[in-house]
Amino acid sequence: MAALPTLALLNAADASAFSDHLGEVFEHAPWVAAAIVDQRPFASADALHRAMLAAVAARPEQARVALFNGHPELAGAAARLGDMTADSVREQGGLALGALGAEDSARWDALNAAYRARFGFPFILCIKRHTRASALAVFAQRLANDRATELANTLAEIGRITRLRLAGRIADHGLDGLHGSVVVQVLDSQHGRLAEGLRVALHDADGAPLAEAVQEGRGLTLLAGAPLRMGRYELRLHLGDYLRQLGAAGALLDVVPIAFAIDAPEASYRLTLSVAPWAYSLVCVREG
Amino acid sequence: MAALPTLALLNAADASAFSDHLGEVFEHAPWVAAAIVDQRPFASADALHRAMLAAVAARPEQARVALFNGHPELAGAAARLGDMTADSVREQGGLALGALGAEDSARWDALNAAYRARFGFPFILCIKRHTRASALAVFAQRLANDRATELANTLAEIGRITRLRLAGRIADHGLDGLHGSVVVQVLDSQHGRLAEGLRVALHDADGAPLAEAVQEGRGLTLLAGAPLRMGRYELRLHLGDYLRQLGAAGALLDVVPIAFAIDAPEASYRLTLSVAPWAYSLVCVREG
Amino acid sequence: MAALPTLALLNAADASAFSDHLGEVFEHAPWVAAAIVDQRPFASADALHRAMLAAVAARPEQARVALFNGHPELAGAAARLGDMTADSVREQGGLALGALGAEDSARWDALNAAYRARFGFPFILCIKRHTRASALAVFAQRLANDRATELANTLAEIGRITRLRLAGRIADHGLDGLHGSVVVQVLDSQHGRLAEGLRVALHDADGAPLAEAVQEGRGLTLLAGAPLRMGRYELRLHLGDYLRQLGAAGALLDVVPIAFAIDAPEASYRLTLSVAPWAYSLVCVREG
Amino acid sequence: MAALPTLALLNAADASAFSDHLGEVFEHAPWVAAAIVDQRPFASADALHRAMLAAVAARPEQARVALFNGHPELAGAAARLGDMTADSVREQGGLALGALGAEDSARWDALNAAYRARFGFPFILCIKRHTRASALAVFAQRLANDRATELANTLAEIGRITRLRLAGRIADHGLDGLHGSVVVQVLDSQHGRLAEGLRVALHDADGAPLAEAVQEGRGLTLLAGAPLRMGRYELRLHLGDYLRQLGAAGALLDVVPIAFAIDAPEASYRLTLSVAPWAYSLVCVREG
Repeated sequence: MAALPTLALLNAADASAFSDHLGEVFEHAPWVAAAIVDQRPFASADALHRAMLAAVAARPEQARVALFNGHPELAGAAARLGDMTADSVREQGGLALGALGAEDSARWDALNAAYRARFGFPFILCIKRHTRASALAVFAQRLANDRATELANTLAEIGRITRLRLAGRIADHGLDGLHGSVVVQVLDSQHGRLAEGLRVALHDADGAPLAEAVQEGRGLTLLAGAPLRMGRYELRLHLGDYLRQLGAAGALLDVVPIAFAIDAPEASYRLTLSVAPWAYSLVCVREG
Repeated sequence: MAALPTLALLNAADASAFSDHLGEVFEHAPWVAAAIVDQRPFASADALHRAMLAAVAARPEQARVALFNGHPELAGAAARLGDMTADSVREQGGLALGALGAEDSARWDALNAAYRARFGFPFILCIKRHTRASALAVFAQRLANDRATELANTLAEIGRITRLRLAGRIADHGLDGLHGSVVVQVLDSQHGRLAEGLRVALHDADGAPLAEAVQEGRGLTLLAGAPLRMGRYELRLHLGDYLRQLGAAGALLDVVPIAFAIDAPEASYRLTLSVAPWAYSLVCVREG
Repeated sequence: MAALPTLALLNAADASAFSDHLGEVFEHAPWVAAAIVDQRPFASADALHRAMLAAVAARPEQARVALFNGHPELAGAAARLGDMTADSVREQGGLALGALGAEDSARWDALNAAYRARFGFPFILCIKRHTRASALAVFAQRLANDRATELANTLAEIGRITRLRLAGRIADHGLDGLHGSVVVQVLDSQHGRLAEGLRVALHDADGAPLAEAVQEGRGLTLLAGAPLRMGRYELRLHLGDYLRQLGAAGALLDVVPIAFAIDAPEASYRLTLSVAPWAYSLVCVREG
Repeated sequence: MAALPTLALLNAADASAFSDHLGEVFEHAPWVAAAIVDQRPFASADALHRAMLAAVAARPEQARVALFNGHPELAGAAARLGDMTADSVREQGGLALGALGAEDSARWDALNAAYRARFGFPFILCIKRHTRASALAVFAQRLANDRATELANTLAEIGRITRLRLAGRIADHGLDGLHGSVVVQVLDSQHGRLAEGLRVALHDADGAPLAEAVQEGRGLTLLAGAPLRMGRYELRLHLGDYLRQLGAAGALLDVVPIAFAIDAPEASYRLTLSVAPWAYSLVCVREG
């Protein structure tokens, strides 16, 4: 696979090379990249992205709606028929929206139809930030909005989608707000040190394992270094094993479950825990 | 149903009425009650119980083993054939040991056969203190003991079984150590008060609901006022609902699970929790 | 000392005996007791007290102000000259307001003079609920109020003063809201039990000891069973001694200070603490 | 002031320049530096230091005791007469040991005399790691040791003293174990973030302020970046101010005192706190 170009390279490239490279950032709308090629050089990938969004926002509503209509429905017929851009396939594939059961497909189809009937364009969502459950919840909420709100929401979601796509096309993009994380630190309140050797695992709401790590004697324990989809998760501290190794276990606690929700995928969630044989505590800090 | 007699009434009763009333306390061994009838009056139900156990312990090993052999096997053929005392039926029924699937039945049968082959008497356990899982765990441990240890363990378990049976036959028994409990208190560290209105529920290890209560503005919240079988449980705090009512919810916590084990059914477990929108803590005190 | 009469006795007493017994409840105003003697019998001391307050409130402003003027100034000339009722001497004596240094006396005199000049009656405060610091703080606040507010505030304070005086004159008064308390409970999160044997001490803001107790294995530890004056206090947990006895001390903590304020003397303050060798936590619940 | 030389410079210097520069590292014993000059080059300042200590340890006991006797007594006559090396003056001056009152001087003199009478050399202590109180406590302990233990203890303390002196004479010394620290992190459990803006202050046992900082929205708050003398300290969280700014204050807590002891000056102490209007908690981790 060829290395990604740097921003400097894109700034210096032929207009056509520039447009080609960024032509699919906006779904079925290569005109967006073409519209900003003369604004080069861009000082940052963020400036480039803002220029692209501004180019869209400057178009009359009819043109924006045409852009919206270039997007596939989520879990819609296009997905099942294979008629999507490679990016969309990848994004929807993360939730296996192309492989829903008959009942779920019917539910999505009904929502998609209702949304399109109401607003005249498909429901668009930055699906990489969502679980199926959170996507359905947002879908129901947005269906109740008025048209002006949904014109704005749709553009905002396209902003999120294209920001992620741009980050995948520029080597030194430096875009922030893409770096959600879940970090854990477990303090041992009996021994006055980090709970070195304590195993922590991250599971999704259905109990499927996502990541696992062992607390070291220093520093933080990273369980997720990229944005997690919105939704519910469970952290599990293998406290009993840890305490038994120290000959310090009480009779009460073994695997300690911590159920929590991610509502801001791009934020950094830091879970600080303290443990003792008959007690534990949690405080969460959400940054960014 | 007739009222239970008091201890005073039993002390003053005919010898035969006394022996009749307590004849089934020891399984298929009415001689135990008869053996102590002349030691009346008893100052307490505890003294009466100790006298019964002493009468058994005073007999030669052969006689004690005969007593042991009067007990049905756990989940054994007697259970399936209906050939047990009413007390044993009730006690085993609590775990539905008479209705195991084929595989589980085979497992119990194998353990029972191995135990009886090794020691010459059935495996006896105060089943009211156990879940199936904890009973199986104890079974495996005890199978590895030597004979002297198992003679003592068996008598100790019969002591536990008969203590509970005696408590069910004397109105004013005053026997302590029968009163295990799980009590919860949730403190609201944001508002400086008890978390009035917070719903807490107790579930077994499989998630089945056992009890539910709402924290009041004063006092403790009782979730179990009688001994819980040994095993794992899950407490669930409906923290999200509570905080939303106060307009104080964070985005992190909703239903807070607290997984814990009961290893001493007759003890009092007090779980003290403090809650805030982005934090909670647990300390457990086990008394008695 | 003669025993206090019961409410029943007072309900049945001669009118003159009744009036004599309660004549000094309102400062220099025996007419208040006399005014309600014919409303007997009273169902409760609380009903009796409400009747006395109603008798005052029913009088025209001029008469109420005359009643107010029967009260001595706090730390005023009357205190220094010995010209107060026995109750007032006792109440002010608790703060040693009769023995202020020259500078403090001058400060109180200036405030008293300013208040009297502004409202035409002395500053009245239920001094048993206050430290000198909190009394001065309230004094400054109330000096800035309008006259109607201070007429009401003064009657409310007289209500508090006379409620306490009444409680001291009726054996079975049953008046609630007089029972502030500070109660402590220390949980040992390493051992899963109450921190039995841990010594806790209550000190005032200057470090002077007020009360001391040892945490027992069950129950709460009472440090104050009567209302504490408004102000700042310090609780001290002798954690190092406790942990050393268990062979569990860390190198960090010895005497743990907990600084807190009482702002509602009649409330119950319950301080729940959990301790471990390298950690501790506090949650306070204020009830009533 | 001239810049400190690097290790490379010292490795390459004239033998006499090397010996001159490091001649005073060992008190009144320039021969130590001279003894190792031919072992150059040293790979690290640590290797250099170990070589110096080895040169001392290789000498017979008599020579080591002579080296010990070149050290001034702590708070002794030499200090009062001004007869010490510049390094010793600086080190003892940190505790103002040259300016004790008559009673304290008498106490130190008595201990010094007793120690010298027992062991034949002065009591030597790396005074930079101690408060007066901890120095006196160690003094009393060591006075009870046997001679072999004190020969070893004295050499170990000289190792600590000279390590610090060496660090002050080599620019790129890279010596670890000199970097004790006190770091604080305050988590806001109501708002799910670091307690940005909360002021924390470090005081000594007598209440004198040592350092102050404000918790930022990210990262740790450094209160001491160099070793603190052994002894007791008090951290003060200005929680009331912080909560009032957020409109979230309860009526209980204002300045929160945290009393703690440093027993290992070269360790890193990290105090993690969580705060809420009616609650707070502390866990300490000591590393290294």
